[in-house]
Amino acid sequence: MARILTVTLNPALDLTVRLAHLHPGEVNRSQALLTHAAGKGVNVAQVLADLGHTVTVSGFLGEDNQSAFNALFVSRGFADAFIRVPGETRNNIKLAEDDGRVTDLNGPGPLVSELAQQALLDKLDQIAVGHDAVVVAGSLPRGISAQWLCELVRRLKSRGLKVVLDTSGEALKQGLSAGPWLIKPNTEELSAALGHDIASLEAQVAAAEQLQAQGVEHVVISHGAEGVNWFNPAFALKALPPKVRVASTVGAGDSLLAGMLHGLLSGHPPEQTLRTATAIGAMAVTQIGFGISDAVHLATLESGVSVCPLTKE
Amino acid sequence: MARILTVTLNPALDLTVRLAHLHPGEVNRSQALLTHAAGKGVNVAQVLADLGHTVTVSGFLGEDNQSAFNALFVSRGFADAFIRVPGETRNNIKLAEDDGRVTDLNGPGPLVSELAQQALLDKLDQIAVGHDAVVVAGSLPRGISAQWLCELVRRLKSRGLKVVLDTSGEALKQGLSAGPWLIKPNTEELSAALGHDIASLEAQVAAAEQLQAQGVEHVVISHGAEGVNWFNPAFALKALPPKVRVASTVGAGDSLLAGMLHGLLSGHPPEQTLRTATAIGAMAVTQIGFGISDAVHLATLESGVSVCPLTKE
Repeated sequence: MARILTVTLNPALDLTVRLAHLHPGEVNRSQALLTHAAGKGVNVAQVLADLGHTVTVSGFLGEDNQSAFNALFVSRGFADAFIRVPGETRNNIKLAEDDGRVTDLNGPGPLVSELAQQALLDKLDQIAVGHDAVVVAGSLPRGISAQWLCELVRRLKSRGLKVVLDTSGEALKQGLSAGPWLIKPNTEELSAALGHDIASLEAQVAAAEQLQAQGVEHVVISHGAEGVNWFNPAFALKALPPKVRVASTVGAGDSLLAGMLHGLLSGHPPEQTLRTATAIGAMAVTQIGFGISDAVHLATLESGVSVCPLTKE
Repeated sequence: MARILTVTLNPALDLTVRLAHLHPGEVNRSQALLTHAAGKGVNVAQVLADLGHTVTVSGFLGEDNQSAFNALFVSRGFADAFIRVPGETRNNIKLAEDDGRVTDLNGPGPLVSELAQQALLDKLDQIAVGHDAVVVAGSLPRGISAQWLCELVRRLKSRGLKVVLDTSGEALKQGLSAGPWLIKPNTEELSAALGHDIASLEAQVAAAEQLQAQGVEHVVISHGAEGVNWFNPAFALKALPPKVRVASTVGAGDSLLAGMLHGLLSGHPPEQTLRTATAIGAMAVTQIGFGISDAVHLATLESGVSVCPLTKE
């Protein structure tokens, strides 16, 4: 099993509030409130742990509301390399009404000082050795520039780590120039980062060639229920997931990413890697939450994934 | 200065979310999110500490979201005698829009087991000695009956403590039969607990006599901006606060209560006790939040309080 580091620069404390009906301007009684330590890198870490890998988690955590994170790290056996910063990790509140309507209230994260940024770089320098790969995932907190992220990717590469970058917007655009080992944007995210539409297969092939020339070995483009395209200098594969009943798409992309990393670091053949990763992503969709709770269910989903070579014409 | 214990059976983590306008069913960006450790007994403790008293805080805290409480206890120098219970302390979310509209989302607290209830009784038995008074304040969490609260008041009295009870509904009704030393309901709360309207002064005098016969030495009835009536076997006083601009009424009742306790335990004359307590309550109203941050401002407010004897006819 591999030793994997995940870096979540802007984690979130997800609060789900269930209530019969939201009456703005009034006092509402909520039926339940669940707090989850979240953020893309933290999610990926959990799926990797389910797959048997040894995981270190890092990034920035607000020191004022870290208990859900600390409890998760302890319960999952993660090595904790997060840098604590003053203030609160951003709260993302979801108001879920009985009729299915959901209202999101997404807060700002803490402002990450240059001191804290340097502390993270120093920490990562210390712990990089002994990890096989690093996943840098999610959005950037206030105080961190896309250029800094680009430097972070370069620095992690220079320490001999395979760097997976899963972000979007300007952060993805800048990060690509550092040549991460693997990326997993969806069609819209990659179109935005490259500045042109990559909806067609032809455009995706061209984009993958351009990215490979920049040093991106694995270009994984996800399309939700329409499947996953994986471009590598040696091959190009397409996977179609089985049709599943959607319970929640939360963590589906993170699950797919964890599955890809699992197959690649375990030396599985490409077809099997993509099949299992696609099934893990589909499994997340069938659940409230994500993670590999049922191996039989996963095997059933795997058998429903179709994988075929992508041809240019 | 006195040594005072406050017991908050059902504290709350207050989350204030500011946003331009709430769009139900959409993704809203919030401008700021502030988390405060709250609950009546915790509020009273802070004002007592501002007044120079030594405070121990107790009650039940959900172990999964206690960091804001722990940080407050450390920063204010409170002795921490809270019993931790599985789950989360209730979250009370306030959505404050730019136009002044406020939406409250009040969550349920943890379920407090009989084991935890016994642990609190044992803890209070251990620490009661060496305190001059105890404030039992706020609502009851799930799992705790009004009868249990009544027994708690009896038990604390039997340990030689002056017991202040600040609650409402069935808890106040049952708690009164244990004869607490001081109560501070508003007119509506006391009417509900006694089962008849006490809006008139005549009804209040009769209610105070009935309560004094049950062992309640100090009956303090608050009416917000209309002032405070204080009935004691030896005297009856009325205070009228100065007119102030209302910023927030959060913590005003808790501030009045802390002020009353301060004067009584410091041996101040009744007129001065009620004057200062009323000014402390008025000061809370002028602030977002509460507490005694400005002694000059407090002195100005005190000079604006009018105190006079209450006459039956």
